[in-house]
Amino acid sequence: MTITMGGITVDCANPHTLADFWTKALGYEIAHDYGTFVFIGPADKSSDNTVYLGFQQVPEERVGKNRLHIDFRVDDRAAESARLVELGATVVGEHAVPTLSWTVLRDPEGNEFCVGQPDEA
Amino acid sequence: MTITMGGITVDCANPHTLADFWTKALGYEIAHDYGTFVFIGPADKSSDNTVYLGFQQVPEERVGKNRLHIDFRVDDRAAESARLVELGATVVGEHAVPTLSWTVLRDPEGNEFCVGQPDEA
Repeated sequence: MTITMGGITVDCANPHTLADFWTKALGYEIAHDYGTFVFIGPADKSSDNTVYLGFQQVPEERVGKNRLHIDFRVDDRAAESARLVELGATVVGEHAVPTLSWTVLRDPEGNEFCVGQPDEA
Repeated sequence: MTITMGGITVDCANPHTLADFWTKALGYEIAHDYGTFVFIGPADKSSDNTVYLGFQQVPEERVGKNRLHIDFRVDDRAAESARLVELGATVVGEHAVPTLSWTVLRDPEGNEFCVGQPDEA
């Protein structure tokens, strides 16, 4: 059995808008730009388990909350959230359980994602 | 800036059904089981960029095609697809472009995912 997570594809209206936001958000680079399908990934390609993000243009609009969302780990949740908002994200809410605090945000097309910081005192 | 992809959360009806399918599909283990939220990840926790999968119970049903889907790389697309179907997946279709062939499948709750094999001759 050889099966490895290679990437996450995001259906969207404007692949370049999302690629622009997410490359800046994650420090990624555009890996391939096929116009209606844009892949981004880390500049450092040495890792075996790099997970690419792909933005695929689709005709249909987003309906309701996405069934899948990506969770990111950050060292400084307040600073990272502020940086992401400056890049075009929107804060939806803040949550905490005893071992984790996280902020829910939306990217420029409304896709939900979380930035979490473990053991935030 | 320190922001790393930590996981993908899947909204679902039955976290344990999906955790069971996906642990077998990927060779992952259950990392945490909170009943309505189950995390799975690789047995080998040595990697810095492990991407966990989380299955979160939600009341609402899946509507239409998921806006995000996960793409997996495999070495033997036919064998892996057959194995995944045996575990409870359904094949939706097969596609190819000059450098890549892939199969679209659905997990037991209907979530689309792709298994791709580069440069399949």
